[in-house]
Amino acid sequence: MLQYQDLNPQLLAAEYAVRGVLTQRAQELEQKGRQIIYCNIGNPHTFLQKPISYVREILSLVEYPELINHQHKSQLFHSDSIKRAREILSYIPEGTGAYSTTMGIEFIRRAVADFIQKRDNIFSDFKRIILTDGASEAAQMVITAIIKSPTDGILVPIPQYPLYNASLKLRGGASIAYYLDEDNGWQLDEQALETSITQARGNGITAKAITVINPGNPTGAVLSYSNIQMIIRFAQKYNLSIMADEVYQENIYNPKHTFHSFAKVMHDMQINDVSLFSFHSMSKGYFGECGHRAAYFEIRNVPDDAFSQLVKLKSINLCANVTGQIATYLMVTPPNPGEESYPVYLAEKQAILNDLREKSIIIGEELNKIPGISVNSPDGAMYAFVKLELPEHMMEIAKSTNSNLDEMYCLALLEETGICVVPGSGFGQKPGTLHFRMTFLPAKDQIINLINQLKSFHLKFTQ
Amino acid sequence: MLQYQDLNPQLLAAEYAVRGVLTQRAQELEQKGRQIIYCNIGNPHTFLQKPISYVREILSLVEYPELINHQHKSQLFHSDSIKRAREILSYIPEGTGAYSTTMGIEFIRRAVADFIQKRDNIFSDFKRIILTDGASEAAQMVITAIIKSPTDGILVPIPQYPLYNASLKLRGGASIAYYLDEDNGWQLDEQALETSITQARGNGITAKAITVINPGNPTGAVLSYSNIQMIIRFAQKYNLSIMADEVYQENIYNPKHTFHSFAKVMHDMQINDVSLFSFHSMSKGYFGECGHRAAYFEIRNVPDDAFSQLVKLKSINLCANVTGQIATYLMVTPPNPGEESYPVYLAEKQAILNDLREKSIIIGEELNKIPGISVNSPDGAMYAFVKLELPEHMMEIAKSTNSNLDEMYCLALLEETGICVVPGSGFGQKPGTLHFRMTFLPAKDQIINLINQLKSFHLKFTQ
Repeated sequence: MLQYQDLNPQLLAAEYAVRGVLTQRAQELEQKGRQIIYCNIGNPHTFLQKPISYVREILSLVEYPELINHQHKSQLFHSDSIKRAREILSYIPEGTGAYSTTMGIEFIRRAVADFIQKRDNIFSDFKRIILTDGASEAAQMVITAIIKSPTDGILVPIPQYPLYNASLKLRGGASIAYYLDEDNGWQLDEQALETSITQARGNGITAKAITVINPGNPTGAVLSYSNIQMIIRFAQKYNLSIMADEVYQENIYNPKHTFHSFAKVMHDMQINDVSLFSFHSMSKGYFGECGHRAAYFEIRNVPDDAFSQLVKLKSINLCANVTGQIATYLMVTPPNPGEESYPVYLAEKQAILNDLREKSIIIGEELNKIPGISVNSPDGAMYAFVKLELPEHMMEIAKSTNSNLDEMYCLALLEETGICVVPGSGFGQKPGTLHFRMTFLPAKDQIINLINQLKSFHLKFTQ
Repeated sequence: MLQYQDLNPQLLAAEYAVRGVLTQRAQELEQKGRQIIYCNIGNPHTFLQKPISYVREILSLVEYPELINHQHKSQLFHSDSIKRAREILSYIPEGTGAYSTTMGIEFIRRAVADFIQKRDNIFSDFKRIILTDGASEAAQMVITAIIKSPTDGILVPIPQYPLYNASLKLRGGASIAYYLDEDNGWQLDEQALETSITQARGNGITAKAITVINPGNPTGAVLSYSNIQMIIRFAQKYNLSIMADEVYQENIYNPKHTFHSFAKVMHDMQINDVSLFSFHSMSKGYFGECGHRAAYFEIRNVPDDAFSQLVKLKSINLCANVTGQIATYLMVTPPNPGEESYPVYLAEKQAILNDLREKSIIIGEELNKIPGISVNSPDGAMYAFVKLELPEHMMEIAKSTNSNLDEMYCLALLEETGICVVPGSGFGQKPGTLHFRMTFLPAKDQIINLINQLKSFHLKFTQ
């Protein structure tokens, strides 16, 4: 019989905190009847954020095409939804039930390329776009492709979404941590990057790539144009590929900030010898369609023979789920002004983004009022990475017992209030600092209530 | 910039013939206007096999729940479809757009366990069922978990569906080939297994598991009860886990054969110290819903601590696509007699299976009439693994030029007739033998026509 010690040590070493100890305990409590507020994961629809209607109208029609010609169709669906479902099925008469080609359905990849072209005003080649089951799959594919040996590493931010470290451990590569600058709105710091890569070299580790998450998870930071320029120059200097996790590109709340894609900035810099993998997904933004595992990644500056190896890797899984591929198509081709469903679409989109914006402001303002708690007000994404200052004696005890004080704090918070957040140690943090990540997806009044509960808890805990 | 030689050599070494050279050439020809008959892949809906209606009615309703309460709903959907969509959404009010828990939605896993329990009359634990994006993902998860080093290997059949060898190469494990017995209807042969494992040991390779595909891909064979008993005893003797690929369990055409699951046979033998991973999917059977990437795997005889590592592995990808999870639910809970959609369901199911049965018989009878071509009539699955006898001088030339004669044959067949099949070398075959795999999914008259074309081609090619 297979035993624990028979398993791949790389798997045993991988950690994925977003679904770790806290979540397990929360589920246990929930089964005992406790009400849990899940702030641990960016899963908008669990907070009953409604899906964008035109997406679901069209998915419904392509799943059951009999509806398209039904006599009552115009009472059921907007006219442009029917038209678009017809258009989709004209490209794939076999429907949602057939494997697509490996990279994904061609007209969808063409639409993705058009979307990038419009967004950035630069050329995008649909032959370099691969549709995937979520952006996590895409990131793992790149890591699988570029890690050759345990001395190969990838620069990953601290704090970071733990997908990257987990996947690196799983593939037997080294994670080269670089610290984001909390005092400078979680931007990247060139000196910190240089320090990390130099230290890695000292340890015999060769950096092959750098991962950047923009807007940031868990930080909520939006990188400035010049910060991205610096990163690209750094990647060029050290011959690093760039893995640009841009899944929160629609989630920017502070009007002072704009999303700049790595593709666009690299194009502006006229750099074409830095390999770029950029990920986008329908799970975030105002769609929040996590369950559909709908995503794409665009590959730039990779020679044909290397690129074809990524395609082969994807082919072993055959193709991304087709309903998700169609969802991705709908993400990149929303209704146009003048179309029947446009006003509904616009109202739904704005309501969701305005609500998130308001909550990002509340989080930023109210959390900073609690003594011992501080946070960079999230300009983007769906998270705040909240800093804790705990009394000296607690820090000492934690140090001497070698225990994770942030995990203890989060567990106590969960037991006391039912609020489920993720300890900072799950994302990494500067030694000696303590954090937790929380989403601000719950409804506004729930968020306000939650902050009050957190405040009471924190005061009690620190006494 | 990333170069070919920078890539993971394990990725470079992986081969996946089902989407290899032949498919690429077929796509090129198609773009030039040639009509191609794709017999290379088991993708039923591309042959316009219609999806089973109740599946699509319900998927349509859960994607767009507004339809459930629409005044015209009963003109659009069967009453039991509406009832079941309501039931599904009562379990997951967040709908298809939210991540589920890692292993999959609980009521669906419970339904899968009930399905196994009913099928085999044995207990199945829903806590040991994981829903995945296709069975390929499940197989890759197991391989990732159990391969520790390049001296770890897995026994894989020759011929085999190339997923297994490709995944093993990718994870840096060794593939230990065992030959299926063509002269004995492609059953497994104990002596062949012993020979393979002994040779592997001689080469310093430790076998960790054995992969068995039943019904067989590419062989179309259905394993007998006693053959499965032999395999389980063999696995017990050498402490091997069993990976049972049972995705074709509904595709059995010869009434002399029955599907016996490994779980059932192992239960009958009262063996509970052999770890078993069994895979099932909605891509095959009479559903053919490949595009939904809907599958599950059941894990038996694995201790909790080892099992939880598989869950962690899945958690890095968050969860299987939720529409696919619901599709899996519908696979394991078809309509019941007395429900409104039952007669339609039954008629659709029987039409598809009868059609496949007729075609399996045609393939078996007609191909064997062509001189130099022979085949074990496929009792199950969707494929025939066809044996070629080519003139001695061709075999000699191929040997001396070190070229794949079967690939040359298949390419010539494609160029001449537009028929796309996969060379036997993509699945493995006994040295000195030549084969190709073809599906019998095209329409019956197309199959008959195709056999005639193949006959003319073969006579011409061998002259």
